Amino acid sequence: MPHDTKTDFPVANVRRFLEPGPIVLVSSAHKGEANIMTMGWHMMMEFQPSLVGCIISSANHSFEMIRKSKQCVINVPTLELAAKVAKIGNSSGRDIDKFAAFGLSAKPGTLVRAPLIAECYANFECLLADASQIQKYNMFIFEVVKAHVATTPKHPKTLHYRGDGEFMISGTQTRRYRKLFRPQML
Amino acid sequence: MPHDTKTDFPVANVRRFLEPGPIVLVSSAHKGEANIMTMGWHMMMEFQPSLVGCIISSANHSFEMIRKSKQCVINVPTLELAAKVAKIGNSSGRDIDKFAAFGLSAKPGTLVRAPLIAECYANFECLLADASQIQKYNMFIFEVVKAHVATTPKHPKTLHYRGDGEFMISGTQTRRYRKLFRPQML
Repeated sequence: MPHDTKTDFPVANVRRFLEPGPIVLVSSAHKGEANIMTMGWHMMMEFQPSLVGCIISSANHSFEMIRKSKQCVINVPTLELAAKVAKIGNSSGRDIDKFAAFGLSAKPGTLVRAPLIAECYANFECLLADASQIQKYNMFIFEVVKAHVATTPKHPKTLHYRGDGEFMISGTQTRRYRKLFRPQML
Repeated sequence: MPHDTKTDFPVANVRRFLEPGPIVLVSSAHKGEANIMTMGWHMMMEFQPSLVGCIISSANHSFEMIRKSKQCVINVPTLELAAKVAKIGNSSGRDIDKFAAFGLSAKPGTLVRAPLIAECYANFECLLADASQIQKYNMFIFEVVKAHVATTPKHPKTLHYRGDGEFMISGTQTRRYRKLFRPQML
């Protein structure tokens, strides 16, 4: 199973994985039911507390599960999971158990009741920190309270959704411009 | 000059360029002064109106310029501009005129007074739509009111910041999973 060996990762540094803009899988649990949705609209909002803003359409079955349970896990999938990512985004937890339907493994969280998706490269356990923008914008502001990141590879191939069924796959990494940064701006 | 031939692009579809998570350059103007900052924390919030949420640290010289002028341009730079992107993020408009210092061309906007950066692949003219989250989160909610996108290349190399002076450069595009999408989910 890929990405099953993970280590704790500092929550203040999850921007390393979220700021580049990957599509993510959001897992949730409520009243004995678990679900997964795909999410492309998210952003870092603060390092410490580690805040992430997320737009979750109220049309999603996950919307009420997350709103009521006040927690979720943001999981970062890699290229190997691309077909499952697309299928998860094009089916509903109203109709199927997505963990079973797509052969994904639910692992218990440490600080949240929502399950981690074992096959994903990273799992960020989140608590709802601010519900004030849900009604107006479907915007959930989560605090990442625990982060698990695979030990290998260092630079996974992530999926970046462009709309119209098209993904950009993450390319090369460069530290060539690092010398242009002031230390406090890294 | 790269990316100087641009066409109007539907504002409801700017997610094609912002959702993959590129670092962007935010240009602004206020009281006869123009400035540029780099921004990595942003997300789509709505298709129509075309809303983009952005975190702009109050430590930035641009913060008050944008808050007071209530407008900006979100510019998408490509790999050729990587060194300038790093330099822009590591200098302040308090000290220098960044357009002059980094040899960038300010072009007048159509609907905003903030200048477009001609060398960027795409320019999204924005009006501040909601200032209510600025004080708490440094979060500006902009409406993209006019979009200009280069006619070529179709898939530019964009920069995706990972922290620690490291960029991910956008890789290949795939439409391989498009057949898994329901039409209304594209």
